[in-house]
Amino acid sequence: MTENGWRRGAAAVATLTFDVDAETPILAHGGRFADHPMVMSHQSYGPDVGVPRILDLLADLGVPATFFVPGWVAESRPGLAQSIVDRGHEVAHHSYSHRAPTTLTPAEERADFERGLAVFAAQGIDIVGYRAAMWGASRETIGLLAEYGLAYDSSLMGDDKPYLVDPAVVELPVHWSLDDWEQYAYLPEPFIGSNIEAPSKVEEMWRAELDGMRRFHCLFNVCMHPFLSGRPGRLLALERVIAYAQQCGDVSFARCRDVAAWAKGDPSIEHRPSPVYEIDPAVYPD
Amino acid sequence: MTENGWRRGAAAVATLTFDVDAETPILAHGGRFADHPMVMSHQSYGPDVGVPRILDLLADLGVPATFFVPGWVAESRPGLAQSIVDRGHEVAHHSYSHRAPTTLTPAEERADFERGLAVFAAQGIDIVGYRAAMWGASRETIGLLAEYGLAYDSSLMGDDKPYLVDPAVVELPVHWSLDDWEQYAYLPEPFIGSNIEAPSKVEEMWRAELDGMRRFHCLFNVCMHPFLSGRPGRLLALERVIAYAQQCGDVSFARCRDVAAWAKGDPSIEHRPSPVYEIDPAVYPD
Amino acid sequence: MTENGWRRGAAAVATLTFDVDAETPILAHGGRFADHPMVMSHQSYGPDVGVPRILDLLADLGVPATFFVPGWVAESRPGLAQSIVDRGHEVAHHSYSHRAPTTLTPAEERADFERGLAVFAAQGIDIVGYRAAMWGASRETIGLLAEYGLAYDSSLMGDDKPYLVDPAVVELPVHWSLDDWEQYAYLPEPFIGSNIEAPSKVEEMWRAELDGMRRFHCLFNVCMHPFLSGRPGRLLALERVIAYAQQCGDVSFARCRDVAAWAKGDPSIEHRPSPVYEIDPAVYPD
Amino acid sequence: MTENGWRRGAAAVATLTFDVDAETPILAHGGRFADHPMVMSHQSYGPDVGVPRILDLLADLGVPATFFVPGWVAESRPGLAQSIVDRGHEVAHHSYSHRAPTTLTPAEERADFERGLAVFAAQGIDIVGYRAAMWGASRETIGLLAEYGLAYDSSLMGDDKPYLVDPAVVELPVHWSLDDWEQYAYLPEPFIGSNIEAPSKVEEMWRAELDGMRRFHCLFNVCMHPFLSGRPGRLLALERVIAYAQQCGDVSFARCRDVAAWAKGDPSIEHRPSPVYEIDPAVYPD
Repeated sequence: MTENGWRRGAAAVATLTFDVDAETPILAHGGRFADHPMVMSHQSYGPDVGVPRILDLLADLGVPATFFVPGWVAESRPGLAQSIVDRGHEVAHHSYSHRAPTTLTPAEERADFERGLAVFAAQGIDIVGYRAAMWGASRETIGLLAEYGLAYDSSLMGDDKPYLVDPAVVELPVHWSLDDWEQYAYLPEPFIGSNIEAPSKVEEMWRAELDGMRRFHCLFNVCMHPFLSGRPGRLLALERVIAYAQQCGDVSFARCRDVAAWAKGDPSIEHRPSPVYEIDPAVYPD
Repeated sequence: MTENGWRRGAAAVATLTFDVDAETPILAHGGRFADHPMVMSHQSYGPDVGVPRILDLLADLGVPATFFVPGWVAESRPGLAQSIVDRGHEVAHHSYSHRAPTTLTPAEERADFERGLAVFAAQGIDIVGYRAAMWGASRETIGLLAEYGLAYDSSLMGDDKPYLVDPAVVELPVHWSLDDWEQYAYLPEPFIGSNIEAPSKVEEMWRAELDGMRRFHCLFNVCMHPFLSGRPGRLLALERVIAYAQQCGDVSFARCRDVAAWAKGDPSIEHRPSPVYEIDPAVYPD
Repeated sequence: MTENGWRRGAAAVATLTFDVDAETPILAHGGRFADHPMVMSHQSYGPDVGVPRILDLLADLGVPATFFVPGWVAESRPGLAQSIVDRGHEVAHHSYSHRAPTTLTPAEERADFERGLAVFAAQGIDIVGYRAAMWGASRETIGLLAEYGLAYDSSLMGDDKPYLVDPAVVELPVHWSLDDWEQYAYLPEPFIGSNIEAPSKVEEMWRAELDGMRRFHCLFNVCMHPFLSGRPGRLLALERVIAYAQQCGDVSFARCRDVAAWAKGDPSIEHRPSPVYEIDPAVYPD
Repeated sequence: MTENGWRRGAAAVATLTFDVDAETPILAHGGRFADHPMVMSHQSYGPDVGVPRILDLLADLGVPATFFVPGWVAESRPGLAQSIVDRGHEVAHHSYSHRAPTTLTPAEERADFERGLAVFAAQGIDIVGYRAAMWGASRETIGLLAEYGLAYDSSLMGDDKPYLVDPAVVELPVHWSLDDWEQYAYLPEPFIGSNIEAPSKVEEMWRAELDGMRRFHCLFNVCMHPFLSGRPGRLLALERVIAYAQQCGDVSFARCRDVAAWAKGDPSIEHRPSPVYEIDPAVYPD
């Protein structure tokens, strides 16, 4: 790969991403949970305790990251987004309310999307990328991004390298295996998961994936949540993963917006628009 | 940190807590389970076999602990609470019936809370702290504690250090990752969990969390259940965790009531009352 | 402990037990599954492939075991029970149909229990012990055992040593953590479990429990299923567990009937009849 | 074993199989999921990214494999099946639509089966074997295979060696423990699984099973899915499993069709037709 390709010469590129969901994924299960102090405190730990600790860790290690923030969270905690940008990281759009687009009408999705954009505009936060809540992009989502001039989406799984999901929109693909939610999230009601794995397992699994991605030249696009990965023992595991990547010598760290720009300038990038399937209802009823 | 701070000079403070639930979490699923001998025996193992063994282990290692006991359990086994206090440990209030406050009306919660207090008063057990059943504190819970002059709650997750959840009430926060239930509890009906992890995993996970907490100066507030952690192999794993903490040299062990007192005297302690959220039902229906 | 105690001088006693359930736990979910060839073959593997392999392994290692067989299975495979007895092992009663007593009326339970006994009587198999299907003993179960002169039950969890659950009936307690079902069983429909653990995890967990039981002088009463533990890699793990126990030098292996007899002759054995709970329906509705 | 037996002198035979399901298992949950771009991209990754990478890996290691392809997938991606055959591997029949036969009427199953055959015939792909979707073979499935002259099925679990499930049809048995789905598949809606294990666990578990199968002379019939095992870190784990088997020196690799032919010529092969159970509805209601 040339120095001008999307990897800029590295064997693999690492984008550390943090979805600062706070209370929103729980409230999307039902506003009534606002009256459950334990559940709310489980979530508020993310921005209140996890984010500052993560920002310090990233500074210590000298790596950039991208924070996907729902508009509701940025609005509720006015200084939060700016405090992230001030440390040299990117803030990206993660919907207003953290309701999955696949559960909304097109008009509802548009309203939620625009409301989130408005929050960031009012706070002077420059937005160039988006991640759908629950990765639940709808058929309309990519069009909205193109319409509003956003450079990238990070919600789909059609490859493990950046690809063009639209002539104007780069996809920075995610995957369940590079998400901390499936490993750490536990809450019986609302149910958000039932497995709590040891940080050593996550460390080992992510290192293994990084090794595979160095071999196959992929985007190591990790998705973390401050209310989960901000816990003390888990943060030390993340520190070890980052240190390992740095020791490899062939992994570079970048913000999502940088990778999106590099990908747009790389003529070898694949075009993978989401296909429109023709489904025979006699074979596959709705 | 000065010797007068809540950690009394230690890098991290360990509060070993045991929720002596016995039959109550099962009966809270339905009184009919009283007629399921296997299920009842699964639970009675806790006070009958687990607690005496745990008390011996704590004596061998020379560490104090806190036992959260539902009033129903203390009432059913009249000598149990006193036998714990006699060994130098704290007994704390864990509701009367182990029904979560979030599932009760305010009047029901108050009645259950007061009935539990009355049991301990009748047995001459001094109570200064409380943990909600299922950690399911309601909006009323902290107020009840303040009204009855209790010094601390241990049911919320807003931080990993003690904080003031009320001007008069210290929160000693818990977390799913420091609870043995998610790792060990298995029962198909009533369903209480479906994963049985090896004690070595729990040992390793808790040691990792302790290491993180030593780095970030937190409260290592472990929650265990005698019917789970009282099993032979699991008890040996707990023994190794405690021995590891003792070898670290910078971890102190304390009863919850001691940490609560130290926190109250520490002016640097954070104020984190549970917020009242203003929820827009158009965004988050109930 | 004297040579006359229930452990006969060993630090811990190991009873290897195999529940030869074959198709019965599936058919108890619905007779319609008899028409699902994959599901039925998943179960028939137990007696057809697993049991002969297990019998050879036990012979190689020179250890006795106890096989709990539903009457339906013994009836469907006429030579099976005798082939187990011929190798020096015990066959015990595991109901006729593998429906849990807690799901049956007392009359249905009695009919099922007696039908199972009749099958073994007709085959000339001497029966002295019983294990309830799904460990789901009812309030009537122990009385049935006493009425029919059986020496022991192995379905409850009130201790981790033998105890008297009735003046005439010894309980050889089981536990979820010493059962292979929770570690290995996977079947989506009917749902019987969703986790498939590595044999190395099970080996390590059972060795850890054995070590704890050597410390606390318990009954290492392992429950396995030939359709699960009869698989090649799992059988090698079991071989390693047994070899480890043999190397310890202080673990003895016995049939359940032998342990029951030793326990009956040991005056230090605990009396733990299943309590009759008085449940206040205002606290614990049915 | 003679050189003429089904193992051709090896201690164990390895059949690497890949079920190229792509979108079909999801669409079988509901055609509506065609409008969920993330879910569809999660599945299309299999043929688009996983299969080419797997083909390269197999070429590097010099081992043959068998790819079970639903007709719908072969039809949607016209060059896919041929690209597999061109690399020296076998393509086998995996239904048309990936709906389990147990969920279809006999007429629907026949129509789906024949439609799949027609797709492969039109593409000039030679088919000699079949695997039921979800391993959900019905009572009619084996008869259909015999009627159409197919040599083998690979959906049942009655043994861990090849056996005759019909005078004319060899069964190459599968098992949940040699399937990557239970270890890696995660998708909340439609729900396809909730555990994501580390590749190292899968590697270790499969090596353990291979070791057991070398001891007991079995068929190491691994089932993988390109959308799961095609991920970078998982592919490296598979590479290590294959390399381990090659180092053993007593494991041979073969296509399913080769093993089926060897088994047919081996007079020692067992006959295990799926039994017709006589179910008493008074014992086992439907």
